[in-house]
Amino acid sequence: MSFAAGLQALDLLGVFFFAVSGSLLAARKGFDVIGSLLLACLVGMGGGVVRDVILAVGIPSAFNDPVYLIPPVLAAALVYVLFNSVQRYTSLLTLFDAAGLALFCISGTLKAITYGANPVTAVLLGVTTAVGGGVLRDITANEVPSLFNAREIYALPAFVGAALTALVWNLGWFTIVTGPAIAALVFVFRVVAWRRHWCVPLAVRGWHRPGA
Amino acid sequence: MSFAAGLQALDLLGVFFFAVSGSLLAARKGFDVIGSLLLACLVGMGGGVVRDVILAVGIPSAFNDPVYLIPPVLAAALVYVLFNSVQRYTSLLTLFDAAGLALFCISGTLKAITYGANPVTAVLLGVTTAVGGGVLRDITANEVPSLFNAREIYALPAFVGAALTALVWNLGWFTIVTGPAIAALVFVFRVVAWRRHWCVPLAVRGWHRPGA
Amino acid sequence: MSFAAGLQALDLLGVFFFAVSGSLLAARKGFDVIGSLLLACLVGMGGGVVRDVILAVGIPSAFNDPVYLIPPVLAAALVYVLFNSVQRYTSLLTLFDAAGLALFCISGTLKAITYGANPVTAVLLGVTTAVGGGVLRDITANEVPSLFNAREIYALPAFVGAALTALVWNLGWFTIVTGPAIAALVFVFRVVAWRRHWCVPLAVRGWHRPGA
Repeated sequence: MSFAAGLQALDLLGVFFFAVSGSLLAARKGFDVIGSLLLACLVGMGGGVVRDVILAVGIPSAFNDPVYLIPPVLAAALVYVLFNSVQRYTSLLTLFDAAGLALFCISGTLKAITYGANPVTAVLLGVTTAVGGGVLRDITANEVPSLFNAREIYALPAFVGAALTALVWNLGWFTIVTGPAIAALVFVFRVVAWRRHWCVPLAVRGWHRPGA
Repeated sequence: MSFAAGLQALDLLGVFFFAVSGSLLAARKGFDVIGSLLLACLVGMGGGVVRDVILAVGIPSAFNDPVYLIPPVLAAALVYVLFNSVQRYTSLLTLFDAAGLALFCISGTLKAITYGANPVTAVLLGVTTAVGGGVLRDITANEVPSLFNAREIYALPAFVGAALTALVWNLGWFTIVTGPAIAALVFVFRVVAWRRHWCVPLAVRGWHRPGA
Repeated sequence: MSFAAGLQALDLLGVFFFAVSGSLLAARKGFDVIGSLLLACLVGMGGGVVRDVILAVGIPSAFNDPVYLIPPVLAAALVYVLFNSVQRYTSLLTLFDAAGLALFCISGTLKAITYGANPVTAVLLGVTTAVGGGVLRDITANEVPSLFNAREIYALPAFVGAALTALVWNLGWFTIVTGPAIAALVFVFRVVAWRRHWCVPLAVRGWHRPGA
């Protein structure tokens, strides 16, 4: 498999994970199947479209290549058929979202590098790609994005993943082993931080955490 | 009238209809005339700007050609002068929004085709153009977009219109007769679905519709 | 200092002022330091990124040039260290926001002109740059943007600043004296309108102002 094909496979898998998180939210909000498919498209493709627009690469892949429609259709169909309870909704959504985050911070950084961006730009775009879909999902659902939630560690794992990807790439160590290792690290970091309620200091020194 | 001029006339008419829907919402929300003009611009131009940015055609028409300022100014002035009651607000907004939807799914698809996009991309961009302004309007007004409302058929008419436009164009049948016929079909589909409360299945099988 | 360097200095100063307004909002909303930094980036860079995407100039400066990361980092650090009370939150946020507005309506207009845009496009982009970051800030914080608030004069000072910049530039009178004079005028206009509760007519003639 060529590098370009591998990068696209990574991207499509990330689209699928984020698309499932979109369809899960649509299910809980009481949207219909079309709304589920549209939210799956918005969340799955949103980060990548923003990345491609900022990279100024012409028509974004998600619009130009029909293969990008498959993951959202699959995601909406899976949620329609398999999902019969809202009880584990939050856990499932967080797990799929974490998987998307882990893949997109890598694919976003690599795509920027292959288009000649400098390492700082590549890391910024990796983080933007990773968090973009989720922010669009939360804004559309009329909630403050979990990106800004003081009780969530969300951007930090994406930043670590993007920075590691740029570093490992520049050292020439990016392989079929190190790539998945970075993705696993990001996924575990995000999920453990969520389960253990890790948090960072508030925006103002000496401020008491609301509810603490 | 050349094809390019006809396409622009179609686009400007769509901008006007969406701009009126923006000014009507501004009126109901108690915005001032400047807020009304700005929301008219955002809703009227939003879909087209997103389309042009994704098509990567350089500066979007709405910014590059001052003629695009006329419809929002007209819309805000009309609402200021003529609109004296909120009683029929929802009906009027839905009708103008449906007219904009009908024109934009055609003009968006055709613009993408004339810039060399493949049919699938053209249909996706037609739908994005048609629903983009309304989504921006609803997000700005702090509401869940009607695009995702399970009680509304909104994206489906736009998709049918965009797909028919791409099909009819590729068959060489797009004329001054078939174009308006597609627009009328989309408009009637959207309005009848709204009046008759048509709906599609929810995102999850076997789920009870909230409130049903 | 060359013109390009002066324009970038103006832009960076505007990024800083808007970034402080973002970190102040993050502080009041109870976000953590990472959320504060991210909101500082979004508000400080948002308007400029939208401007650069619409101008189609390639990768936006805020992503391409690491120096744009300094103002948001400074802003989040300053708010973390110095801000210990929410009492004057609204006043401070409005003052920093007004300063950002004053600089961005000038830098946005000038950047568009230097890329060959016509004067109308340049003024539109100046206004978009100036109001863009604040709109993103308010939408993310789940509030109706103050851009549309009938009790705020927000877009008008930005429009006056952008129009004066385009006019003075085309007359060849844009200097180290007239530039800051326009910025001061926009800042004073915005702040005095806010303090004195100036307002413009509502979107509909003869409508009573809510609460009036």
